[in-house]
Amino acid sequence: MAQIGFVGLGRMGGNMVARIKRDSDHDVVAFDPSKEARAKAKEAGARPATSLADLVKKLDAPRTVWLMVPSGQITQDAVDKLAKLLEKGDTIIDGGNSRWTDDKARAAALKPLGIDYMDVGTSGGVWGLEVGYCMMVGGPAASVKRVAPILDVLAPPKTEQHGPGWNHFGPVGAGHYVKMVHNGIEYGMMQAYAEGFSLFDASEYDIDNAKVAHLWMQGSVVRSWLCELAAKAFDEEGNALDEIAPFVEDSGEGRWTVEDAIDKRIPMPVITASLYERFSSRGQNAFAAKVNAALRNQFGGHAITKAVKKTKPS
Amino acid sequence: MAQIGFVGLGRMGGNMVARIKRDSDHDVVAFDPSKEARAKAKEAGARPATSLADLVKKLDAPRTVWLMVPSGQITQDAVDKLAKLLEKGDTIIDGGNSRWTDDKARAAALKPLGIDYMDVGTSGGVWGLEVGYCMMVGGPAASVKRVAPILDVLAPPKTEQHGPGWNHFGPVGAGHYVKMVHNGIEYGMMQAYAEGFSLFDASEYDIDNAKVAHLWMQGSVVRSWLCELAAKAFDEEGNALDEIAPFVEDSGEGRWTVEDAIDKRIPMPVITASLYERFSSRGQNAFAAKVNAALRNQFGGHAITKAVKKTKPS
Amino acid sequence: MAQIGFVGLGRMGGNMVARIKRDSDHDVVAFDPSKEARAKAKEAGARPATSLADLVKKLDAPRTVWLMVPSGQITQDAVDKLAKLLEKGDTIIDGGNSRWTDDKARAAALKPLGIDYMDVGTSGGVWGLEVGYCMMVGGPAASVKRVAPILDVLAPPKTEQHGPGWNHFGPVGAGHYVKMVHNGIEYGMMQAYAEGFSLFDASEYDIDNAKVAHLWMQGSVVRSWLCELAAKAFDEEGNALDEIAPFVEDSGEGRWTVEDAIDKRIPMPVITASLYERFSSRGQNAFAAKVNAALRNQFGGHAITKAVKKTKPS
Amino acid sequence: MAQIGFVGLGRMGGNMVARIKRDSDHDVVAFDPSKEARAKAKEAGARPATSLADLVKKLDAPRTVWLMVPSGQITQDAVDKLAKLLEKGDTIIDGGNSRWTDDKARAAALKPLGIDYMDVGTSGGVWGLEVGYCMMVGGPAASVKRVAPILDVLAPPKTEQHGPGWNHFGPVGAGHYVKMVHNGIEYGMMQAYAEGFSLFDASEYDIDNAKVAHLWMQGSVVRSWLCELAAKAFDEEGNALDEIAPFVEDSGEGRWTVEDAIDKRIPMPVITASLYERFSSRGQNAFAAKVNAALRNQFGGHAITKAVKKTKPS
Repeated sequence: MAQIGFVGLGRMGGNMVARIKRDSDHDVVAFDPSKEARAKAKEAGARPATSLADLVKKLDAPRTVWLMVPSGQITQDAVDKLAKLLEKGDTIIDGGNSRWTDDKARAAALKPLGIDYMDVGTSGGVWGLEVGYCMMVGGPAASVKRVAPILDVLAPPKTEQHGPGWNHFGPVGAGHYVKMVHNGIEYGMMQAYAEGFSLFDASEYDIDNAKVAHLWMQGSVVRSWLCELAAKAFDEEGNALDEIAPFVEDSGEGRWTVEDAIDKRIPMPVITASLYERFSSRGQNAFAAKVNAALRNQFGGHAITKAVKKTKPS
Repeated sequence: MAQIGFVGLGRMGGNMVARIKRDSDHDVVAFDPSKEARAKAKEAGARPATSLADLVKKLDAPRTVWLMVPSGQITQDAVDKLAKLLEKGDTIIDGGNSRWTDDKARAAALKPLGIDYMDVGTSGGVWGLEVGYCMMVGGPAASVKRVAPILDVLAPPKTEQHGPGWNHFGPVGAGHYVKMVHNGIEYGMMQAYAEGFSLFDASEYDIDNAKVAHLWMQGSVVRSWLCELAAKAFDEEGNALDEIAPFVEDSGEGRWTVEDAIDKRIPMPVITASLYERFSSRGQNAFAAKVNAALRNQFGGHAITKAVKKTKPS
Repeated sequence: MAQIGFVGLGRMGGNMVARIKRDSDHDVVAFDPSKEARAKAKEAGARPATSLADLVKKLDAPRTVWLMVPSGQITQDAVDKLAKLLEKGDTIIDGGNSRWTDDKARAAALKPLGIDYMDVGTSGGVWGLEVGYCMMVGGPAASVKRVAPILDVLAPPKTEQHGPGWNHFGPVGAGHYVKMVHNGIEYGMMQAYAEGFSLFDASEYDIDNAKVAHLWMQGSVVRSWLCELAAKAFDEEGNALDEIAPFVEDSGEGRWTVEDAIDKRIPMPVITASLYERFSSRGQNAFAAKVNAALRNQFGGHAITKAVKKTKPS
Repeated sequence: MAQIGFVGLGRMGGNMVARIKRDSDHDVVAFDPSKEARAKAKEAGARPATSLADLVKKLDAPRTVWLMVPSGQITQDAVDKLAKLLEKGDTIIDGGNSRWTDDKARAAALKPLGIDYMDVGTSGGVWGLEVGYCMMVGGPAASVKRVAPILDVLAPPKTEQHGPGWNHFGPVGAGHYVKMVHNGIEYGMMQAYAEGFSLFDASEYDIDNAKVAHLWMQGSVVRSWLCELAAKAFDEEGNALDEIAPFVEDSGEGRWTVEDAIDKRIPMPVITASLYERFSSRGQNAFAAKVNAALRNQFGGHAITKAVKKTKPS
């Protein structure tokens, strides 16, 4: 029986706690500022803590605290507070979506305190509770070894063909780095499907997108989990996705992937294009389009559509 | 003194007739279905014709007829009609924006009749009347030689550094081919400037775009006529181009350039991207964005903006 | 028991015949110019034919002949010959990689003869014999109905989640159209993975690509059959793919997808970029690079590497 | 008469000193570690200094020191040393190719010392001596005002149409920021021309590239200084650029432009593609191509070219 402290019990963290308690007898101490989230964790079998200090107190040394909170300042603040509460030999795991360079800075800051730091990139989204979380791990081998029983239960079961459902890729940052690239690839794959279905939408044939996506799951080269989700989406939303706005968010990983590719002089046309298409879906291509229209008007006398004041693409 | 028949007296054709008559004593017979356009040509010094047949009758053999009409079916119809009116030794010039492959088909169809065919790609837009028309010529050398005096007056004056203001690039189609690629390059250059000014618009600095464009005309590597027009556009429309809609048309040449690049296995990422940005400016990226949003929703439970029914980007 | 004539017994056609005979009692008459291929088909249980005429003679009316020969002229020739041998009510199926517009032209040419035409786009590669062939079908409903028993045995078995392993998407051309877009998406997905692994190769971490690909099969968002193949490729070829040349072929479908996207004004940045990367891998970007280097030299006095005469990228 | 100290007398700095002395009576004190460079500056009319300290000593307060040294550590070191030598009211100008964020950091570090900092982005390359340097200036208005007489002589002469040959775009960093974007646009324009000429190279026509580039200078929409240089390059190097290797360097500005575009969520497909094409010209696309080839081999049994061990694209 292993023990873990969990900080952050939202959609991801809450489900992870639930999966651990459902499938093992590991001891989970769980904290979230939300009383409701703590109650839910208790119901799942975890021991709730009312503060970071309380959580640390309830854990046996050497402690392992898993952060599952939004990346950026919130994660940094949690690390800073834990640095004051934990002691030599303890480990902080960042299971969120941090930039690998932030991991390295945090590990360096914790080193003089003797606190270890691990980074775990997690993929699988809302399906992780059921399927298991695909986890990409970075950090010191000793910490990874200690937390392995927890990772084993969070991950999909080991298979003969593909091995374990989590893996350790190198020193601090390696986990988030692999996860970052995973997301870059994800953007590219999604946009590849999106362009294909977009052509069906404009095609001379009356193609049934759901039927296509389902068929492609049957032995085609492009079968994938995203293709399966596309089938599901077209089943649920209809062939024209009528009620879905053409507006695509992005998180940091896609941007960081491209930034590091540029830093390493690696051409990344597909992943970059998929990122830019997300920017454009949010109207960020508008000023460039205005410049093009203005230039066409200047040399060709081409009519320019006079914008209704303040009208921008949504 | 040379002689030419002009068919199509719109913005381009009308100005070309005016330039010939203003700067030479060449004989111009001019036809357009619009009575008003004919009257204007007459005022410019041309002899108006009331029909294609009338135009042909008014020319001395061997005749040269310059078509300056919209590309596609209208040009094809005019060629077909002229094929019946002209005789062996005459020449038809297509000065419009035809695909070079159409030129080749037309020349082949006219060959048995002994009628020559030339293609002239023309750049310079509405400024041609003043600056001269940059003309890219394809077709048989003998026809080109005969029409040279007309080309000389239409083109900008010969310079020591760059030579003549028109040039002959090869057999039928070569003129439109060079013009097609010219337009592909034009798309790429326009989008390059557009992206740069777009970044200024989003920048932490409060950059005056007109000031930048004017300065870049002063010895910078990116000085160009398009940069000069950008300066003019920002002068006239203001720094934010507030009243210009982000909507960019395209004509055939950009599409044909990319098609031929694919046919020849030449990667053309910049010209293709600039073409796609025009498509996107017209909302053609919307379905792909919907697919991306739908997939994100499926795996991540990410909120999707429910489209107001029928709301699409303009 | 259904009956089918098979023309073309190469890697794809030969395996398809083998799958039909292995898994059903359907009657297969098989022709290939290669005696060896015919012998192999006989061994698999098919009745060999020594010529197209012989094949037609051995089939009962209404006949169905499945072409599995290289697209382009060879397919066209086979259709033309069969048109003379078949009779009203018979059906020709093109199971190869034809352009959908060629399908339409062929169907139109066969219509006056009363011969039906179906197109079947097939995905699954060399794995089809084992997994089943994912088949995208176009053509008249009556012909599709008659050939359904053959399609049922060629395809992967029907599943509750995804339905049948083949599907009918519309009139003539629809099958190859869906397959064409499938391949475009395939290019985009492959390039997305390729870019990701390429960044690992340049990364500050010492990432084990096979380990990554295997892990991603375990619950990640990017799990797919291509990811599984990537794991297999890195297992077999090593982390650096040392012995594989950076040279990527392309077939027609990627190019046709982009061409139709341009025709329909659909931006397709990812699929196009993946196509262009294939061109570039074959050195087709060299001239553009020379122009860039020459321009840099002109304005900046930047040293240009003087090419060893005739040395071009392979 | 104004006074300036010049540090860095290479190709750019040396020519700038020469231009100032040729066209004005401004006092120039010039330092470079190379004795030869100092001698050349002396010959041009500048007063040579043998060290930074000597240079500072020879200037009258308030001093202005113009750095024209390689960006990065060398510039930083020079700034650090000057910070110890200069005094309150003096100004350091970085005329090199620094990142605008480095400018801001330097200005902040110098502020407590009362030393002002200006950044000047310079375009025009080796042609600046003759044509004048196009200068984009950032920094405090008072410093800009003091150095204006120097800028006036370095820049191309003011014109009625475009105004002065240098301009002030905002606080510290604004000059290098505008120059950075200038270079991004430059990459895009160069690649646009490169793609166009690349298609001519593959075309069915036998196009004379020099003739095209010269003609396009005559009234076409794509006329530009880069087009003029293309004409010159084809004149000098021949139609096929036979002796130029397809290898294109890049400096920091293109990369920084894309990074900032990503930071500001501005899609920049053309400038990014032109950057990636430079990476690819240097073989950086090789690993991705290997992955594509390996995957094709896995699913299609497509032959892969076995690389000769260690053979990579140059």
